[in-house]
Amino acid sequence: MAGLVYVFTGDGKGKTSAALGVALRAAGHGLRTHITFFMKGEYPYGEQKTLGLLPNISVARFGSLEFVDPNKVKPEEKEQAWLALENARVAAHSGHFDLVILDEVNVAAAWKLIDVADVIRFIKEKPENLDVVLTGRYADPDVIAIADLVTEMKEVKHPHKRGIPSKKGIDY
Amino acid sequence: MAGLVYVFTGDGKGKTSAALGVALRAAGHGLRTHITFFMKGEYPYGEQKTLGLLPNISVARFGSLEFVDPNKVKPEEKEQAWLALENARVAAHSGHFDLVILDEVNVAAAWKLIDVADVIRFIKEKPENLDVVLTGRYADPDVIAIADLVTEMKEVKHPHKRGIPSKKGIDY
Repeated sequence: MAGLVYVFTGDGKGKTSAALGVALRAAGHGLRTHITFFMKGEYPYGEQKTLGLLPNISVARFGSLEFVDPNKVKPEEKEQAWLALENARVAAHSGHFDLVILDEVNVAAAWKLIDVADVIRFIKEKPENLDVVLTGRYADPDVIAIADLVTEMKEVKHPHKRGIPSKKGIDY
Repeated sequence: MAGLVYVFTGDGKGKTSAALGVALRAAGHGLRTHITFFMKGEYPYGEQKTLGLLPNISVARFGSLEFVDPNKVKPEEKEQAWLALENARVAAHSGHFDLVILDEVNVAAAWKLIDVADVIRFIKEKPENLDVVLTGRYADPDVIAIADLVTEMKEVKHPHKRGIPSKKGIDY
């Protein structure tokens, strides 16, 4: 069956989590997944430790330690995002994976760390049977147009708005 | 920090996947998770095989083999859903878990397999520090009202609408 292109976007919680859940499910069926994190920096994200315990899941992580300021993008941030896209491309064409996840790629494109045209090209040139998941808010309309499945994670209610801080192990 | 109540609802793909991703992240931080599947029956869901490989995640599965017809709910389907809620309640109060996930509980309540008042009571009586995730479409307004974080997974585009069937390892 031809591979599908999934997009998880929107301002609500659950986009990266959903992509990781898809990887978990895929691993259970013996499918091989590669995850490229575009903007995770060096934070000790819990999921990355756990992912290492699962068979058939490989992970590559890009981005700097600091948060990106979309109004003051640094050359090294662009380079990291470009390296991330190249990493995903190599994985996609390696023949070693059934599913490639580009986590936060939508944000990287929206903030012009990478050119959205290169993301479109990645999708159009992917091997036919490969599934691809793209996450992050601000998904470009052109990406949505060529995707097969798009879910908008919509924030209905968020505790940060009530002054409750993020919770380690759950939110990050 | 006080535990939070998360709801993943809506008609789009990614609700259960997001809950599993949260469990994966929690396990990476050494948190202990129990997942109660309300309506999964005996299908060979890939994620359940993989979950068994992770530390600090336990799983209980309820529901019959057949799909539930919401207009013709059978007594055994109600019993399964009731057992599921009891299972989640026991896990929540056992002191063995930091996070309890009630997968598809919203659907079970919407279809009257269980009384939504019992779901509300479960939330209100949970140990203070316990985090809870409730998934499934049709989340009850009263559940949303007492939840801390609610994401609506909204279907923007779905391949099934174009006649493409579900894909093993990705969709189920």
